[in-house]
Amino acid sequence: MRTSQFPIQTLKEVPADAEIVSHRLMLRAGMIRKLAAGLYTWLPMGLRTLRKVEAIVREEMDRAGALEVLMPAVQPAELWQESGRWEHYGPELLRLRDRHQRDFCFGPTHEEIITDLARAELKSYKQLPVIFYQIQTKFRDEIRPRFGVMRAREFLMKDAYSFHLDSASLTATYQRMHEAYSHIFTRCGLAFRPVRADTGSIGGNTSHEFHVLADSGEDAIAFCDASDYAANVELAEAIPATAQAPSPTESARLLDTPGVRTIDDLVHGFAQPIERTVKTLVVAAAPESGSALVALLVRGDHELNLTKAEKLPEVAAPLRMATEEEIRAAIGAGPGSLGPKDLPIPCIADASVAVTSDFSAGANQDGKHWFGLNWERDLPRPRVADLRTVRDGDPSPDGAGRLRIARGIEVGHIFQLGCKYSEALKATVLGEDGRATTLTMGCYGIGVSRVVAAAIEQHHDEQGIRWPTAIAPFEVALLPMKLGKSFRVREATEQLYDDLSAAGIEVLLDDRDARAGVMFADMELIGIPHRIVVGDRALDAGHVEYKGRGDNETQLIPIEEVVGWLVARLRAVP
Amino acid sequence: MRTSQFPIQTLKEVPADAEIVSHRLMLRAGMIRKLAAGLYTWLPMGLRTLRKVEAIVREEMDRAGALEVLMPAVQPAELWQESGRWEHYGPELLRLRDRHQRDFCFGPTHEEIITDLARAELKSYKQLPVIFYQIQTKFRDEIRPRFGVMRAREFLMKDAYSFHLDSASLTATYQRMHEAYSHIFTRCGLAFRPVRADTGSIGGNTSHEFHVLADSGEDAIAFCDASDYAANVELAEAIPATAQAPSPTESARLLDTPGVRTIDDLVHGFAQPIERTVKTLVVAAAPESGSALVALLVRGDHELNLTKAEKLPEVAAPLRMATEEEIRAAIGAGPGSLGPKDLPIPCIADASVAVTSDFSAGANQDGKHWFGLNWERDLPRPRVADLRTVRDGDPSPDGAGRLRIARGIEVGHIFQLGCKYSEALKATVLGEDGRATTLTMGCYGIGVSRVVAAAIEQHHDEQGIRWPTAIAPFEVALLPMKLGKSFRVREATEQLYDDLSAAGIEVLLDDRDARAGVMFADMELIGIPHRIVVGDRALDAGHVEYKGRGDNETQLIPIEEVVGWLVARLRAVP
Repeated sequence: MRTSQFPIQTLKEVPADAEIVSHRLMLRAGMIRKLAAGLYTWLPMGLRTLRKVEAIVREEMDRAGALEVLMPAVQPAELWQESGRWEHYGPELLRLRDRHQRDFCFGPTHEEIITDLARAELKSYKQLPVIFYQIQTKFRDEIRPRFGVMRAREFLMKDAYSFHLDSASLTATYQRMHEAYSHIFTRCGLAFRPVRADTGSIGGNTSHEFHVLADSGEDAIAFCDASDYAANVELAEAIPATAQAPSPTESARLLDTPGVRTIDDLVHGFAQPIERTVKTLVVAAAPESGSALVALLVRGDHELNLTKAEKLPEVAAPLRMATEEEIRAAIGAGPGSLGPKDLPIPCIADASVAVTSDFSAGANQDGKHWFGLNWERDLPRPRVADLRTVRDGDPSPDGAGRLRIARGIEVGHIFQLGCKYSEALKATVLGEDGRATTLTMGCYGIGVSRVVAAAIEQHHDEQGIRWPTAIAPFEVALLPMKLGKSFRVREATEQLYDDLSAAGIEVLLDDRDARAGVMFADMELIGIPHRIVVGDRALDAGHVEYKGRGDNETQLIPIEEVVGWLVARLRAVP
Repeated sequence: MRTSQFPIQTLKEVPADAEIVSHRLMLRAGMIRKLAAGLYTWLPMGLRTLRKVEAIVREEMDRAGALEVLMPAVQPAELWQESGRWEHYGPELLRLRDRHQRDFCFGPTHEEIITDLARAELKSYKQLPVIFYQIQTKFRDEIRPRFGVMRAREFLMKDAYSFHLDSASLTATYQRMHEAYSHIFTRCGLAFRPVRADTGSIGGNTSHEFHVLADSGEDAIAFCDASDYAANVELAEAIPATAQAPSPTESARLLDTPGVRTIDDLVHGFAQPIERTVKTLVVAAAPESGSALVALLVRGDHELNLTKAEKLPEVAAPLRMATEEEIRAAIGAGPGSLGPKDLPIPCIADASVAVTSDFSAGANQDGKHWFGLNWERDLPRPRVADLRTVRDGDPSPDGAGRLRIARGIEVGHIFQLGCKYSEALKATVLGEDGRATTLTMGCYGIGVSRVVAAAIEQHHDEQGIRWPTAIAPFEVALLPMKLGKSFRVREATEQLYDDLSAAGIEVLLDDRDARAGVMFADMELIGIPHRIVVGDRALDAGHVEYKGRGDNETQLIPIEEVVGWLVARLRAVP
């Protein structure tokens, strides 16, 4: 392609409402333009990258044996009513009425539609397992669309759905999809982590999110520095640093602590190491627990994890913190003076609290704290659970190393759905025993357009985008100097353009006859991974100038070798 | 592909609500399934063909220099209000509201969106001409969706839009698109005609429809048997068979014609040749004509063309036939007794009427007709216009031969829009003279999903679909006989499958081990153009059995030659 036929639409100014770097760079590089809030037009340059990601996704899904279909974007309400989601989905579901006043929605996902198809098309266990997928436009009416295509309302998604006779078959396919996703993001040239998204209660559903690592990511993920373990930071299991509490060295003392209401007061006012302070947080108890309130203990330097707390059988869901009034009525002291010793309500300790010795905590009397407390000696050992959010440096739950915290952008999500939709829609097949068996399902999504933005968040610098070659809009920028003045430059450039194209390399020839600085800046902004400059001076010695997008220096390559040299370089890039 | 991995989803029964053959065959061959009225899911088999059509369209658009973009399906009402279409589009426009109660629509077309993009991105004449296109899902809320994907509500469309400094540039691009469309439909293996869709008033817009010829087509088109001339039958110019009226041979006679109210009565009751009868039809006149009514004359065997009549300056638009009451009040006779002689209202004659001699017509008195009338001799020569619809056998307007009438399915439409949208949206560029110049536009659509249905309407037989090879879901069906019993058949089939695949041929290997009749019927229904049968008997002589989808007989091909033989055959097919 030549810029005369494939115009560059770069912008010099940084658009005011673009908050994150990928949004800014996609606008500046002429990849997208905003139509309305959360609605973007893909310009030719951006669409080339989008189509490359799409092609990689399609190839790997096909390779994994998935069958491509194309379902309508507009979906009848009846199926959503059957699944119960018409009522429960909320305002992200764009509901609409046709001319006959029948209810439809613009599909944000297709579980209902594919399950309806499956119940009609799948009759026998012999047709299982089967995976259907599509690459299609979705709509989610985000309350605050932002970050360009990262959190757009209309977006391109690959959604896949698998059907099985039993959960063993689902598990096998789930694993296959997990591998396909790893291939996809690897081929896109992205650093990513599959992250356990829900450790779940026993027998619950398994789910993994695929995160592209980037400092700007909205999600914090915890991953092991010595193994494959990775989980959403909210869900990662917190392991105490020691297995057992050290032996007591202090005696228990009840002291007056006027004005001490926080851990900070205790640490600074009484020189307590924060690791040996205990916070007591009171929440509403589950009705069946026999108590109105329950206390949760975490170390002073740890954070209560609300997601984990809410899953405890003793705790009411949704989780609700007790009011000061409720606390005073039940315990006789305010929230700043609570502690596990002589506590008149049930109490659950985080695993790290259970291995803490010589600790300080409130005495359940206003203005008094206990110091030098030790389990068993001074108060009974409490029920123990995982109540806190992991921190950088914590032991990895798989015992392999330490947890590190990184930020990630969710670009994929795989999920063992089980029978949720097949039960609701009565999707069954005849099993081997001839009896109707409810289908078991998995679903597997990739935000295709989001992958493009995530790739930029991970790969950019001050000058612009630094595309991984596999998803770059072009592989090579060919920049002739003084095209209008030098016949020799023109001739060499045209020859090189033909030779590179014939070698199957995607070249963008900048034939604008612009100043070198303008061309360099545009090609760096757009992020083309390889740059060849053709100029009279280098041609004198039979050379052209090469610079990789991430290189600091240019290098001279003999013109007759450059095509072979680039082919080798390009095809070697992962 | 193997049927074990790419399951066949054929149906034996003909679905009850499928009215046309392509709809029936697409359902039976397992290409599509209905989700709701006018909404279809493309199954894997159907999607393969859809994607092939899409790929051909994309290649030819790219080759013509068009730039691919992707605009949102959901469009803000504001732009449609700017163009005026928010009010005028009618209920086919699917209007919707987002969670903030802002108005949007699901785009049935994208003139407003692309013009909005153009006014932002195009600044100078140097950027012109430029063509943008997209291949995207559209929605038109048809009042009565039917015929499967032929007239669906949600469908896949290629829409392109070109921008120009002047109409000369538009005309050149229009011609280029005309050629690209011809390449596309030729490559799809379809018999088609580009048809002039609007002969238009002078200075008006030029437009061509591309029709796939098929007896089931909804549109009648008139085309010349000796030239490229083709037009929608409603718009084709009607030329009289003779240039001048023959000399009179009869005298004018006023006769009592009790009970004669129709041309049929006149022909049968008074032995008049129908070609020498004249119908007088009275319509409301244009207000500025000075008369309330105007009479239109066509020969008894011709049909008044309402589209042509409405365009006459004397006729009120929209066209309205006069009531009997109005006619009696103005003329003093009923509609069955009208004629041009002594008619008290203005009168316009079709060109064929103007060259008719010795004709009969009503006498503007109930129960009386004139016979043997001749222009000039018996009544003044009237104003003449083209008022009738052409018939098979009429002279071609270009003077080259005779018109034939065929039925067609509209699959493409190209249109010289001019400044309609660019004026409304104030889309200008700086011209060479430095002054703001309103953009001139063209638009160019192809119903990609409709092409699939139209191809079937044109290519099918009793057994099923007969795909043109270029858009067949697979090129070759490989059918082993008694796969489960014959090791030799299995071995030969697997070898052939590998060799055909390696040669770049798309093979569907039916490894169901079904009966021959079942496999033959399925592959004929699906319409795979070439069939290879591997069986023990033929293998004895080193042969496999070949049959083209349209062949009556099978032929034996030496197994070691069959790959090369097929490659030659497949690549020779246009």
